Order: sequence, then structure tokens, then C-alpha cells
Amino acid sequence: MIKIGIVGYGNLGRGVCLAAEKAKDIECVGVFTRRTPETVNPVTRYKVYSVNDLSKFKGKIDVLILCGGSATDLPATTGNYIKDFNTVDSFDTHAKIPEYFAKLDKIAKENGTLGAISIGWDPGVFSMARLLFGSVLPDGKDYTFWGKGVSQGHSDAIRRIEGVKNAIQYTVPKETALEKVRAGLNPELTVREKHERVCYVVAEDGADKAKIEKEIKEMPNYFADYDTTVNFISEEELKENHSKLAHGGVVIRSGKTTEENSELLQLSLKLDSNPEFTGSVLVAFARAIYRLSVNGETGVKTAFDIPLKYLYPGNPDEAFKSLL
Amino acid sequence: MIKIGIVGYGNLGRGVCLAAEKAKDIECVGVFTRRTPETVNPVTRYKVYSVNDLSKFKGKIDVLILCGGSATDLPATTGNYIKDFNTVDSFDTHAKIPEYFAKLDKIAKENGTLGAISIGWDPGVFSMARLLFGSVLPDGKDYTFWGKGVSQGHSDAIRRIEGVKNAIQYTVPKETALEKVRAGLNPELTVREKHERVCYVVAEDGADKAKIEKEIKEMPNYFADYDTTVNFISEEELKENHSKLAHGGVVIRSGKTTEENSELLQLSLKLDSNPEFTGSVLVAFARAIYRLSVNGETGVKTAFDIPLKYLYPGNPDEAFKSLL
Repeated sequence: MIKIGIVGYGNLGRGVCLAAEKAKDIECVGVFTRRTPETVNPVTRYKVYSVNDLSKFKGKIDVLILCGGSATDLPATTGNYIKDFNTVDSFDTHAKIPEYFAKLDKIAKENGTLGAISIGWDPGVFSMARLLFGSVLPDGKDYTFWGKGVSQGHSDAIRRIEGVKNAIQYTVPKETALEKVRAGLNPELTVREKHERVCYVVAEDGADKAKIEKEIKEMPNYFADYDTTVNFISEEELKENHSKLAHGGVVIRSGKTTEENSELLQLSLKLDSNPEFTGSVLVAFARAIYRLSVNGETGVKTAFDIPLKYLYPGNPDEAFKSLL
Repeated sequence: MIKIGIVGYGNLGRGVCLAAEKAKDIECVGVFTRRTPETVNPVTRYKVYSVNDLSKFKGKIDVLILCGGSATDLPATTGNYIKDFNTVDSFDTHAKIPEYFAKLDKIAKENGTLGAISIGWDPGVFSMARLLFGSVLPDGKDYTFWGKGVSQGHSDAIRRIEGVKNAIQYTVPKETALEKVRAGLNPELTVREKHERVCYVVAEDGADKAKIEKEIKEMPNYFADYDTTVNFISEEELKENHSKLAHGGVVIRSGKTTEENSELLQLSLKLDSNPEFTGSVLVAFARAIYRLSVNGETGVKTAFDIPLKYLYPGNPDEAFKSLL
């Protein structure tokens, strides 16, 4: 059994707990939280400890799965965890990946540990599709569409507006754009042409709804470049209809092998639960990291560095006998 | 530049030639044929040699791409080529892969060479999807649908019937089955429920068409277990409407992360040219085999053993900076 520990118990931490239950070769030693452990009720039978007690588990955990956020938590803490443990995380600030990689790779090599960064579905499974598709169809163009699904970052941005009590934002790919891409037309698409943004907002009593709507629609980077729809609803409606964490998307590459012949490659995900699926991907990569560390590897890996067989729950060297 | 040689000049050999043209880091040293070299007119500017002269190229070719058939050619010849060269092939007799692997792995290790077997889209890209999907969603079921596309084996089987001058057979996935799978119903499907077979047959003058149709529909393994449609057409119609080598298919995995939440993963291909795309995959894996052999690896690999970054046309250790 591979022994994992889970650091952080938000939506993703819960997803990893549930995924660990589904993996027959994984045993969860415990959930490590910054909160008072007694206040955390895990969805599974796993024990809950204070993150301050983690050092006591050195040598007792094969891989730590880090479920903190990418904005501040992971950059501040992973370097510390990877001194004592093999780690897997879902760091997803694309622009900062090289810097994050370099820093952790150095620490891991110095300490003889191994980490996998930026694991999940994007970055993660979608990145693998982009690399594979681009390599086997070099004369082409690829597109990633996200959604329909909740964007946590955009929802948070709305919640920070004065007069907003709660909000959920869906990123929705535009059918017309998808159709053009799937027809192999390799269109140049602006951000506005690829996705639209649909917001459900609960306003404070007496708030100026027109002002809130205007503020959302004109918010730079987040909304100004998109077709944005704002719907005001009640807190009850929000809870009832918008509490599912569904998501998904598609990576499409369209290209030519000759002037006459086009090829279209697609990888798509339709997820009822974004954090549960992301958790499931993290657990599979924790298995790979454990195996590679047993083989003596140290440093930091991404999804591009790991042979697929190490993700396989069975004997990695036998996978080709049934799955090839 | 990575120097490749192409052995065999049928549809697949032509596909590899065209793919090598698209790869900026690949140089084709030559096409090696069993025919008289002067009778072969390659689609590209590459030189054509007799396969008997191959030994003269030892040390001058980084990777040989073997484009022979899986029924008799590859099992008979790969063991010989891999003594002197790194190789990549598209061996696709699923049941015999373990035996083929073991034999070649031994020879390659003895001779310090490296080979990749069973590369293409199925086995190949589809196998990678099956392994990845199964690993990240263990509580689920996967399905592979092929087509719409020409099955060479089934077309050949029809051509062997008395009174048949020429024939093309399309494998067509059934929409009703696809819909059930995509709805996450995880149905148990018989072969008849998954695919149908559509045949276009040119009969000899005066042949008994009713008898031919009956023979096709009752042919065990090939057609008896399927809904089969037989259309008689003229040789001209066959040439005009059925000479494209389009193909494709989809790998779908549907499963649960919890009782309430299902996740659906799909990888699909829509190919104007089956051999050109297969050739393009072979070239990407030739690049990986070259790089791994430079790293000192020997023996035989499948698509499951090779980190994705080695397929990347650019610097493999930089791929994560732009594609993750």
C-alpha cells in the first residue's frame, strides 16, 4: 500500500480523500489542516491532524498531496514540505510555473525527495493532450475551451464588488467557435469569440443592481473582453441551483498531414465534480511519484516527464499486455 | 537532425515519408524496398534503395521506421533489423504483443539498440488514452469505437470470395450505442450493438450477387456477428467514391468519483488519411526513441514507457514552459 497524506481540506482536499478511497493500492495516513483538527469532519474515515504535527510523520508518508491554492498558499509552503516529503500539487498559475519548478527542483534534489507539480486536468490531462497532439500533428493549431463550468477566480472577483452578497460565474464555450474549430477551419479567435461569461449574483438588500452589473461587465481582464450576462437571483436560488461544481472542456488540434488531408484530434472532459476529478488525477500521480522515488529519482516532475505506465494501478510493466 | 530510414513503401511507408517532411528536426536518409528500387516513385524527394543494402547504412541511420504488415512481415523481420538499428513499428496484432515484445527486447538488449513497438493510433494514441483514463478514473468502464473508416482486413476478406472483383468495407460505430455510453449509462454492449459493417462490392460479370451477399453476411468472425449491409457498385464508382483512406474513432471512459458524481472522458480522432496520421505518430516516436537511445537506453518500449516530452519537436525539457 502506498501511504499518502493530504494537506488542506477545502473542496480539493475532500476530492482527494474520496479519490483515495477508490484507489485500492493507496492508504491515507491522515488529513493535515491549519484549522483545529476537531472542527474538521472528513467525508471519509481518515484521521485529521494539525498541519503543525506534520514533521512527526516524516518517513511514515510516501507522498503528500498538497491541496492549497496557487495564488499564495502553494508558493509559500511547498518548498517547506518538499524538504521532508515527496509531494504532488496542482499549482496552476501558468506564467509562474518555470519559477516554481526551478525553486522546488533545487530543494528536492538537495533533500533527496521527488515532487510532481501542476497536476490536475488543466494544467495536467489537458496539457498532456496539447503536447501529444502537437507532437503527432506538427502542422496544425490547437484550441482549449473550458466549461461550461464555475470559475472560482471570476466568482471571487464578483464577490469583492460592493453590494454583492454572493456570486457564481460560469465560463461557457461558444458553440459557433467550437463548430468552426471542429470543421478544421483553424480560425483566429479573440477571447470574446471563444467563451462567454454568465454570472448569478445575490445582491445585498437595497444595493444598486444596475451599478453592480456595470461594474462586473467593465471589470478589466476578468469580464471587459467577454460577452457577459448578469442574472440577479436570491440566496436560496443560488444554493439550490448553483452549488454543483461541474466543469469540463475540450482540447482540439486540427492540422494537415498533406495539402489534401486534415486530421482532427480532441480530448474532452465532462465533469460532475471538478474537485473530485482533480483529486482523482492527483492520486494517480501520487502513485507514479511513489514508484519513481523508489527507483531513486529526485527533483521535480511535470506530467510531461512521467511514463504513463506509472499511473496504472496494476503492475506498470504489465499494463501493455491488456491496455495496448 | 535525426536521421531516419523507412522500410517498406506501401500506404504506411508513404505516410511516413510525408510526415518526415513536416518534421523540421527529421532527415530521411532513404526508403528501403523489397521491389526493384527504380520502380518506386516516392511522394517525396527521398532516395530509394533495396532493402538488401540496408546493412551498409549501419551507423548512418538513427532510427528505422518499419512499415510492414503485422500478419507476417513484422514478426519475420523486425528481429533482424533491431540487431543493427533502433526501430519503430506499428505492430497491431493485440494478442501477440507480449510475445513480440519479449523476443525483440532480448535481441535489442543484446545488441545495444532500442525499439518502440505497436505505435500508431490504435494501438498507440488510443492505448495511451485507455491507460490514462483508467488510471485517473478507476471506478469506471471504457469503450473504444472505431470508424467510420475502411477496415483493410475486412475488405480483403470480401475480395477473397469467388465472383468478387474488388471491395471496400467500412466499420461504422452505432449512434445509439455511442449515445448510451456518452450519457454515462455504462451499458453492456455486444459487438453487434457497437458497430455495423457497410460493404461496397464490385462483382465479376455474371457473378451470383445473392450468393456473394449471403457469403459475406454469414462469414464467421468478420461479419456474422454484425449488422452488415452489402452494396454492389461499379469499379468506377468504387474508385471515385471509396478510395479515400479516412478513419477515426473514439475512446470513452465513464465512471464515478462518488455515488452522486460521474465523469466522462473522451479522446476522439477524425482522420482524412489513416496512413498519413499513423505515419505522423511513428515519426514523433522515432524522435523519442532517438533521444532515449542517446541517453543510453536499450531494449523495447511501448507508448506506455515513454515520457511525453520526448515526442516534442522542441527542447523536451522546455516543453512545460509553454504547453503545461
